[in-house]
Amino acid sequence: MLSEILEQPEAVARVIERGRKDAWEIGRRLRSKGAAFAMLAARGSSDHAAILGKYALGVHLGIPAGLAAPSIATLYKSRLKLRGAAVIGVSQSGRSPDIVEFLEASSRAGAFTVAVTNDPSSPLARAADHALFLHAGEERSIAATKTFTTQVACLYLLAAGWAGGRRGQELLAGLCAAPEALRRALADGPAIEASMKPLKRLERCVVVGRGFPFPAALETALKLKETAGVFAEGASAADFLHGPIAMAGPQAGAAFRALLLLSRGPGKDSIKRVERRLKAAGVSSLRFGPDPVPDWISPFPLAVRGQLAALRLSLAKGLDPDHPSGLRKITRVH
Amino acid sequence: MLSEILEQPEAVARVIERGRKDAWEIGRRLRSKGAAFAMLAARGSSDHAAILGKYALGVHLGIPAGLAAPSIATLYKSRLKLRGAAVIGVSQSGRSPDIVEFLEASSRAGAFTVAVTNDPSSPLARAADHALFLHAGEERSIAATKTFTTQVACLYLLAAGWAGGRRGQELLAGLCAAPEALRRALADGPAIEASMKPLKRLERCVVVGRGFPFPAALETALKLKETAGVFAEGASAADFLHGPIAMAGPQAGAAFRALLLLSRGPGKDSIKRVERRLKAAGVSSLRFGPDPVPDWISPFPLAVRGQLAALRLSLAKGLDPDHPSGLRKITRVH
Repeated sequence: MLSEILEQPEAVARVIERGRKDAWEIGRRLRSKGAAFAMLAARGSSDHAAILGKYALGVHLGIPAGLAAPSIATLYKSRLKLRGAAVIGVSQSGRSPDIVEFLEASSRAGAFTVAVTNDPSSPLARAADHALFLHAGEERSIAATKTFTTQVACLYLLAAGWAGGRRGQELLAGLCAAPEALRRALADGPAIEASMKPLKRLERCVVVGRGFPFPAALETALKLKETAGVFAEGASAADFLHGPIAMAGPQAGAAFRALLLLSRGPGKDSIKRVERRLKAAGVSSLRFGPDPVPDWISPFPLAVRGQLAALRLSLAKGLDPDHPSGLRKITRVH
Repeated sequence: MLSEILEQPEAVARVIERGRKDAWEIGRRLRSKGAAFAMLAARGSSDHAAILGKYALGVHLGIPAGLAAPSIATLYKSRLKLRGAAVIGVSQSGRSPDIVEFLEASSRAGAFTVAVTNDPSSPLARAADHALFLHAGEERSIAATKTFTTQVACLYLLAAGWAGGRRGQELLAGLCAAPEALRRALADGPAIEASMKPLKRLERCVVVGRGFPFPAALETALKLKETAGVFAEGASAADFLHGPIAMAGPQAGAAFRALLLLSRGPGKDSIKRVERRLKAAGVSSLRFGPDPVPDWISPFPLAVRGQLAALRLSLAKGLDPDHPSGLRKITRVH
């Protein structure tokens, strides 16, 4: 897991270098087709990358995007009316059966389909009109790390390509800051290790973000669950203030921590409001960020901090991060 | 909370009776406008109702629908391109500032907007082109119960109206089974109370559903959090098998239970797979359902079982379900 975490700056740089031309061409076709909205289909870690894709399309391009419920096509056999839609399937292996089936059904229904996958020969890549590849090499760790950040890079490339022109070039230039941001986050490894060592009794954790850091919060919570056996949950600061903050009350005890993810973006004020509410409730919180990068780039270093935290906490608890219990790499969901 | 739980059969019947004409008219306009996709905007409990709306539109009508990230408009001030979109804002009070702001921005961007709210004089109702009302009376309990089921009824009515014609009439007739299904679930109150009494040490819970029961699982998890201080998480059977099942390993202990939500629909096989995996891992699970109603109606009785479970568990733990810590009824998120 650690060696794959460390590969990320190069892996993301490789995606940008090798994928930019394809993303530009896919974007040209999306514009010429007049695609009006996007649906993203994914599971697990890829789901969190897909949410970042939704934010990027919405914030940078004004394209409405939503997460598909693959079961609508695969379980209920409904034929969605997808003319004018771009459907983007995101799967590391390209072999999640329900994502493949959803993309096939979308293609039959008239959607413009794009696969984001690590395996060019996978059923997902074959089912889609176009594909962007992760170029991440084999991922042996059960907890996805480099495939998460390379998926985000692919989706950001796709957004840049779809924007095209000068705006597309600006987004591409912005994305080129990601590898260096990842390197700086990795350099904080010893500090993250030191902050996790005292937490070996941690059982429950809420990871809070707002805006672009929110999907990084979901991803960090998943890593903490998968790798360190912590009952972790990702939450938007907006939703957290709306209800589940009750979890942080005096009954929560020492086995609980809140982890707050900050960026330089407009979501930071609500995170600070959460921090004050937690403090007033006597709950300890940890903070990751803000990194010195634009808001939309912050999920890269935030995700890496989360991966390192999960790894170090797992080791502090005497667990083996490479062999978390109960998990297989591909789950065949129909 | 209990008195509001018990009001639900009448409240849902009232929504159907009073809302059907408006839903029919809104549906006629949606069809004449040729609305091609839907975005739903909501927070908290309303978010779970909105996901059911997404399933209903997709499964029954083939309309692609997704959950909006309100922050794209409210935090990032992006102008979404929403011609051809129906934007549906769901909020009990009609006063969640970010939902109101998202609907206003959507309206300016050319979307056809619908409010689903309890308060006809609320800013959300005023901001929308059309509205469907919950007719639920004042909700005094902090944990939403009757406003959740009436929101679902409104969204199902909207789907029936949007379908129109014979299909719309079929959906309407199907929905009319909901009040009786709610009554039968309420009649199981004593059995639910008995099943919760031994669980007063419960700290963590995963609530698992698949297809239409999935949003009921999210809602039940939220009730358990808000009302009984349990660190509960809703999960799709698909995602649960994909990763977080690690949480159910031998390290989970006696403070953990899985709660499985069943319907008669096609998702039941994956729930049974989860049940077998949990059993193999030595983890105890509880089961709600299947109720003798069609899959898409099952969220009504499942949600009620979840509400009763949260209420009874809260009392078993010596908590006050009407005064959970740290919560206010309206949270002003911008």
